[in-house]
Amino acid sequence: MNQDELKKAVGVKSVDYFKSDMVVGLGTGSTVYYMIEELGRRYQAGEIKNIVAVTTSSRSEKQAKELGIPTKDLNEVDHIDLTIDGADQIDKNGQGIKGGGGAHLLEKMVATNSTRNIWIVDQSKMADTLGSFPLPTEVIPFGCEKTFTDLEKEGLNPQFRLNEDGSRFLTHNKNYIIDLKIGEIKHPHLLADWLDHQVGIVAHGLFLDIVNTIIVGYEDGPKVIDNIR
Amino acid sequence: MNQDELKKAVGVKSVDYFKSDMVVGLGTGSTVYYMIEELGRRYQAGEIKNIVAVTTSSRSEKQAKELGIPTKDLNEVDHIDLTIDGADQIDKNGQGIKGGGGAHLLEKMVATNSTRNIWIVDQSKMADTLGSFPLPTEVIPFGCEKTFTDLEKEGLNPQFRLNEDGSRFLTHNKNYIIDLKIGEIKHPHLLADWLDHQVGIVAHGLFLDIVNTIIVGYEDGPKVIDNIR
Repeated sequence: MNQDELKKAVGVKSVDYFKSDMVVGLGTGSTVYYMIEELGRRYQAGEIKNIVAVTTSSRSEKQAKELGIPTKDLNEVDHIDLTIDGADQIDKNGQGIKGGGGAHLLEKMVATNSTRNIWIVDQSKMADTLGSFPLPTEVIPFGCEKTFTDLEKEGLNPQFRLNEDGSRFLTHNKNYIIDLKIGEIKHPHLLADWLDHQVGIVAHGLFLDIVNTIIVGYEDGPKVIDNIR
Repeated sequence: MNQDELKKAVGVKSVDYFKSDMVVGLGTGSTVYYMIEELGRRYQAGEIKNIVAVTTSSRSEKQAKELGIPTKDLNEVDHIDLTIDGADQIDKNGQGIKGGGGAHLLEKMVATNSTRNIWIVDQSKMADTLGSFPLPTEVIPFGCEKTFTDLEKEGLNPQFRLNEDGSRFLTHNKNYIIDLKIGEIKHPHLLADWLDHQVGIVAHGLFLDIVNTIIVGYEDGPKVIDNIR
């Protein structure tokens, strides 16, 4: 299977976890695209009934709506039963980095308000230790050069994320992204705690103690890592 | 002295701490207004020379500019030598609540990037324990009802801040304010730590271990509380 077929196999497989009557959380990304497509197929076929979806991006919102899946805003639901999303890197303990797309604040809001979380990835995202994927942070523009300097002084190798035209990338909330090219994150909880306390940083891409199940696409098919927590 | 005369006496007194060649941080508020007015007078008279001001609001920015005080954005200065700002409540250990005006995120950015901080208040702001003044938090609109519920479950008595027309108050960053009517904050550091870790909360009004000097306006004149830290 090529990369795309791996992603599709994982996306399709993950839909087995969605049941009728659930409030479902739909992430964003190339693997998630296949998951939503398959969910729409089963919903239209009546195999999965009476679901409501909360999405983490306008792209997934649009895709769900086109497939006839009813959507609601996070504020309009009591809870989310199960969210399926991608991840940029996952370590051997099931800790993850998200935010490659710059939407980690919304994604974290959905994930922390979900009873269960599943991440669907291809094998290239699995690593012993986090950090070779740059860790995204979201920072307010006011005083962001100071925030940058603080990150630099902490040895976190910060870099503003830029658009192709060289301007700074803006998030949904009109903030900047600073990516931390750390190489190896030896102590993810200590780093998350330190980042949580920085005044100018409104969110970071460390998703710790969140995922319950991971489905990984390998050459010989999807592999489920279950009961992580 | 009436309340206004108390504020003026404190504001004027605080300018003694500004020296020539400083990068100064200027807060916002009714007491701060008198401080900036006096700073402008001494600057124009040549008693204080070669200063640059960083402000926490467009109101203070405008006032400083009208007085001829050069201003810069926080991103354009290396550091701030001394910031003088107001506070909404200060306890006997010099811990404070700010954010009554909804600008506590910008104010905290300026304060934490200042070598020294002075708060100028009238005596009504002094309390044994923090909490009778509602503690402001700044929350992202996405999922804010979930954030509200989490605050409620933690027993923090949350309330969305509203405009006069009943619509929700929007901050500089287009977020909402949720005020916490706690009554008595027995453990400010524990509360600050908990709030720092909430995904949907981008800032809160607890300013802990920040102020160095407080100038309080009493009926018989300003009293300086120095060497707090």
